[in-house]
Amino acid sequence: MHDQIVCVAGVTVLGLLEQAYFSLQVIYARRKYSVSPPMTSGPPEFERIFRAQANCSEYFPLFVASLWVSGLFFSQGLTALLGLLYLIGRYYYFWGYAESSLGRLKPLYFCAKVQWVLIGLSAVGVLCSMSRLYLGLDLMRYVSRV
Amino acid sequence: MHDQIVCVAGVTVLGLLEQAYFSLQVIYARRKYSVSPPMTSGPPEFERIFRAQANCSEYFPLFVASLWVSGLFFSQGLTALLGLLYLIGRYYYFWGYAESSLGRLKPLYFCAKVQWVLIGLSAVGVLCSMSRLYLGLDLMRYVSRV
Amino acid sequence: MHDQIVCVAGVTVLGLLEQAYFSLQVIYARRKYSVSPPMTSGPPEFERIFRAQANCSEYFPLFVASLWVSGLFFSQGLTALLGLLYLIGRYYYFWGYAESSLGRLKPLYFCAKVQWVLIGLSAVGVLCSMSRLYLGLDLMRYVSRV
Ligand SMILES: N[C@@H](CCC(=O)N[C@@H](CS)C(=O)NCC(=O)O)C(=O)O
Ligand SMILES: N[C@@H](CCC(=O)N[C@@H](CS)C(=O)NCC(=O)O)C(=O)O
Ligand SMILES: N[C@@H](CCC(=O)N[C@@H](CS)C(=O)NCC(=O)O)C(=O)O
Repeated sequence: MHDQIVCVAGVTVLGLLEQAYFSLQVIYARRKYSVSPPMTSGPPEFERIFRAQANCSEYFPLFVASLWVSGLFFSQGLTALLGLLYLIGRYYYFWGYAESSLGRLKPLYFCAKVQWVLIGLSAVGVLCSMSRLYLGLDLMRYVSRV
Repeated sequence: MHDQIVCVAGVTVLGLLEQAYFSLQVIYARRKYSVSPPMTSGPPEFERIFRAQANCSEYFPLFVASLWVSGLFFSQGLTALLGLLYLIGRYYYFWGYAESSLGRLKPLYFCAKVQWVLIGLSAVGVLCSMSRLYLGLDLMRYVSRV
Repeated sequence: MHDQIVCVAGVTVLGLLEQAYFSLQVIYARRKYSVSPPMTSGPPEFERIFRAQANCSEYFPLFVASLWVSGLFFSQGLTALLGLLYLIGRYYYFWGYAESSLGRLKPLYFCAKVQWVLIGLSAVGVLCSMSRLYLGLDLMRYVSRV
């Protein structure tokens, strides 16, 4: 099993490093703009960094869940590649948002698209597995022929 | 291994679709009530939708983790069924909360109960596996006999 | 596969119980300080409890992801032990933060260190698996010899 998920696990580790990096930016911004916990509001510069990290954190579980389901049931290579694209998109989202509210939009659309593809591949992979298991129909063969 | 988790993976994909749907509602509500990021406060109608999605997001990782542990260590069929009930409950929670604060309570109690059962089954499954592995005692046979 | 992850699954269940416990504290605090949803601000005592749970929830997916990757690719026993330490640290973080903002710092540094070690072990485990799989080099043997 390990060989089937090692790339997906690698992308997960990169995602963990990225989230840790975003958290550190919030901690630095708290110091820079003197916003001590439990406060979460302050100057707009702080609030954008705070929300950028919050938004990335909110989607991280969705990202990881779709990454693993797609990696396990669809295809590891393609999934890992999409995962990398997503993480790169999130990096630009974070710094775009930190600069201005509008700056978050372009990378957000990109990440949203990649996330939808990951969810789509997960759905296709699971449906093919189910149809093979319960109906005896190997749909994946048709999918890969197309 | 795939056959043992395909239903649980299917419920995970449905959960991802539901979370994406909740996120879209927040985006629509931001437009409707003119609450631009990074702001998170606004009219109560907006705040309820915003918090409903935040609350569902907060519990999504707990849901997925209990779903997979229970599916792997207890029983896939029962787990997938409970997972579906949870997701239906969360749908009613979201729209109940969007209408009024009180409206969230009934579906919340329902989801909480299902979530507790999932955690309970996870605990039973893991304990049975541990006792079989480390004590040589097959408790699951007793459990399934009851 | 079950035997290779049963301890990690056990720590995950303990983590779920801890998160459920933190959530209950927020619900009690909402009653005690009369902060009804969708409100999230109130007296500092409430806000510290609210943020303590929010912070623990935010990091829970990172914790679980690193726990499973490290457990699968590095070593289950060490990973489960570190996971327990993290959960104990989070307990002290929660109650430290509930008492005062400063009270959260010592356990936070402890948790952060444990979390970094878990991410580090995940990275080492995945890199060793990759090098074995794609380069034919069994680095884990060297690692365990050191
Ligand atoms: N929690 C998010 C849910 C929806 C979402 O992901 N929105 C995108 C597009 S408006 C975003 O960038 N939100 C900014 C933020 O979360 O601060 C929100 O409050 O907006
Ligand atoms: N983050 C939650 C943790 C506890 C919880 O899940 N509370 C339930 C019952 S009071 C809820 O519906 N909270 C509404 C919300 O999160 O906005 C909170 O702030 O209340
Ligand atoms: N969401 C966190 C991200 C960074 C973080 O984990 N900060 C630590 C050290 S300042 C913390 O304890 N934050 C308190 C909190 O989240 O309320 C924050 O807003 O601070």
